[in-house]
Amino acid sequence: MNAVDVIRAKRDKGALSDEQIDWVIDAYTRGVVADEQMSALAMAILLNGMTPGEISRWTSAMIASGERLDLSGVPRPTVDKHSTGGVGDKITLPLTPLVAACGAAVPQLSGRGLGHTGGTLDKLETIAGWRAKISNEEFRQQLATTGAVICAAGDELAPADRKLYALRDVTGTVEAIPLIASSIMSKKIAEGTSALVLDVKVGSGAFMKELATARELARTMVGLGTAHGVKTIALLTDMDTPLGLKIGNALEVEESLEVLAGGGPADVVELTLALAREMLAAAGIDADPEAALKDGRAMDAWRTMIAAQGGDPDAPLAQAPIVEEIRAESSGVLTTLDAYQVGVAAWRLGAGRARKEDPVSASAGIVLHRKPGEQVRAGDVLMELRAEDESRLAGARQSLAGAWEIGSAGQARDLILERVEA
Amino acid sequence: MNAVDVIRAKRDKGALSDEQIDWVIDAYTRGVVADEQMSALAMAILLNGMTPGEISRWTSAMIASGERLDLSGVPRPTVDKHSTGGVGDKITLPLTPLVAACGAAVPQLSGRGLGHTGGTLDKLETIAGWRAKISNEEFRQQLATTGAVICAAGDELAPADRKLYALRDVTGTVEAIPLIASSIMSKKIAEGTSALVLDVKVGSGAFMKELATARELARTMVGLGTAHGVKTIALLTDMDTPLGLKIGNALEVEESLEVLAGGGPADVVELTLALAREMLAAAGIDADPEAALKDGRAMDAWRTMIAAQGGDPDAPLAQAPIVEEIRAESSGVLTTLDAYQVGVAAWRLGAGRARKEDPVSASAGIVLHRKPGEQVRAGDVLMELRAEDESRLAGARQSLAGAWEIGSAGQARDLILERVEA
Repeated sequence: MNAVDVIRAKRDKGALSDEQIDWVIDAYTRGVVADEQMSALAMAILLNGMTPGEISRWTSAMIASGERLDLSGVPRPTVDKHSTGGVGDKITLPLTPLVAACGAAVPQLSGRGLGHTGGTLDKLETIAGWRAKISNEEFRQQLATTGAVICAAGDELAPADRKLYALRDVTGTVEAIPLIASSIMSKKIAEGTSALVLDVKVGSGAFMKELATARELARTMVGLGTAHGVKTIALLTDMDTPLGLKIGNALEVEESLEVLAGGGPADVVELTLALAREMLAAAGIDADPEAALKDGRAMDAWRTMIAAQGGDPDAPLAQAPIVEEIRAESSGVLTTLDAYQVGVAAWRLGAGRARKEDPVSASAGIVLHRKPGEQVRAGDVLMELRAEDESRLAGARQSLAGAWEIGSAGQARDLILERVEA
Repeated sequence: MNAVDVIRAKRDKGALSDEQIDWVIDAYTRGVVADEQMSALAMAILLNGMTPGEISRWTSAMIASGERLDLSGVPRPTVDKHSTGGVGDKITLPLTPLVAACGAAVPQLSGRGLGHTGGTLDKLETIAGWRAKISNEEFRQQLATTGAVICAAGDELAPADRKLYALRDVTGTVEAIPLIASSIMSKKIAEGTSALVLDVKVGSGAFMKELATARELARTMVGLGTAHGVKTIALLTDMDTPLGLKIGNALEVEESLEVLAGGGPADVVELTLALAREMLAAAGIDADPEAALKDGRAMDAWRTMIAAQGGDPDAPLAQAPIVEEIRAESSGVLTTLDAYQVGVAAWRLGAGRARKEDPVSASAGIVLHRKPGEQVRAGDVLMELRAEDESRLAGARQSLAGAWEIGSAGQARDLILERVEA
């Protein structure tokens, strides 16, 4: 077997054999296939596609490159959730303890933000004392007792994916559905969950701008999960405008606490409950998540979960010293507020990182005062920019140029667009 | 400017701007663009193509990555020839001194063989004492006096191409017309010739198997030469069957000497004269190359050319100790003899190399006793396999399985198929 033959087969629009896929993933993990060979193959996959059979085998090979966690000892049904990433998407934070409070075990292995979308671990790290990294043993134990764990994925899970993901990032080969789907699903399957609910974002602030490609990605991932024995369903949800009112690391913890306290913005509550219902149904648990939000059980689970990883749930969250208001220039209805531009602005304020090794600001971000569909008058505050440093403001303002429109009544867009199951 | 943006532009079927092309070639030469980025870009170019404008700029950028030789001091019209490579293609050997004997200066910067096609330098190195590597000063001087130089290209000519060529070889990105054309033409233009005749091979033993792709490559290269001020024409010539009767390094020198002595196989003579006429016309020289072959002037030029680089034109050529005959299994007309299979067999006998750093055998190769169109009787010798080592024979025989057919009268195929000019 050699790398050039595998690359040529895909270049010439052929389907790779199981043996070719197993070999190339293993050889790449071991450094026998070089980065420049894998990047050529990734580009050929991006441009020529893969059959469902190839994607499934590719995913299996990535799982087989590392350890697959065994959660059979956990005395609760396991169910996880994954979002393809959006602006203001803090749903994992209230959702994980909520679903755990209803009787499931949620093994949330999460990542950090890169680009204009935030990362769950970055958000939780704004809580004093909280540790993202725990051992496999701590992970299993916490899952068995609390039912809720959000932590960093260990190096032993799908190492082929870790290496390939870093390569794709610098070679223009991120946007390939077979590679996105197998990357996400190899990690989720390797973490050992029995069921999985996917939140596939669609719109300007999402990875997938078009409904058709988002649907294709969702179907591919649902197929992969099902083929690997994980009950998987997906919701396609809107990401043309930010989710909730707060975008930024500590800001999103703040808003998650509002939801866990029974309040919070309507869209965040709606999506949290919709995903919770899907997760509980997939786990075979008959429970009402709305009640668990209202009666404080979800908040209790949150406090236990945070404390289990060294966090102080009562510690005050960081507040940005610089707050600048942006006001409406005319009166009418806010018809659009572009998620991508808001995400980039928050990133430039300090909430995100340009390179993997950069730190993020805990307090930087954006607080929205109006959402699309709401009335505004000229001079009303539309949003606040928050930063640790004045020098961040100009770049953020620039990113927001033309990000909203004030007109007559706009068209409402549903938050939950479609549901995909096997 | 950054590599990912350039890769994405081509990935998404856009045309690269002049600035993008100049930047990426320069940055790749300097190591700022990494191999894994360039290989992803090469795959995107292979699959999505390039406009004539992009190919021209890409070629210019590769030329600009190094030195462009100035041959204006050479007191003869300069004209070169390039073949895209075939089996038994030794034409450069008799052609260069022949055209020089007619009054032109031929600055032949040549390469080594890789895969089933032989390399001009490997062939000449079977001549005792002959040196492939000479300085630029020796090159200019020899060109001015003898008019004929065949030597290795220096490291200072199109270094971007050297680096990219080695990368394409291991990443399945060799077979892209924009990259093939710019690779060939950047070196030929940088060597400083005023005119160029291309021999674009078509058929099983060639890089281009189909007439349509060979024609596209020829047109692309003629366009590139013309755009860079080099008078360029191309002949498309047959490579479904080997050229001449001898395939192998010293064997091809032997056959070239037959041609220079006024004899040799009809097809080798026909193509040598056709290319010589094109070269002389392109150089504006009115001379009869056939006369120069017959009256010994071409042989004299050969002897001077070989001696100028330290070679002994009278030294005996290596003879293989192992000779195995292959005989016809039936009677009739030899209708086909597959160039690719014969090339691979000669390569396995030792005439070629698997890796750049491997040595080649001087004496190994194949001597054909029959060519397509000729009568054979069962038991007649069809060809001889020659090797330094018995162990080479089995692999060569295997490569020849089904390489010929003996039937009733076959269809003759023209040697020179088409002519392409600007």
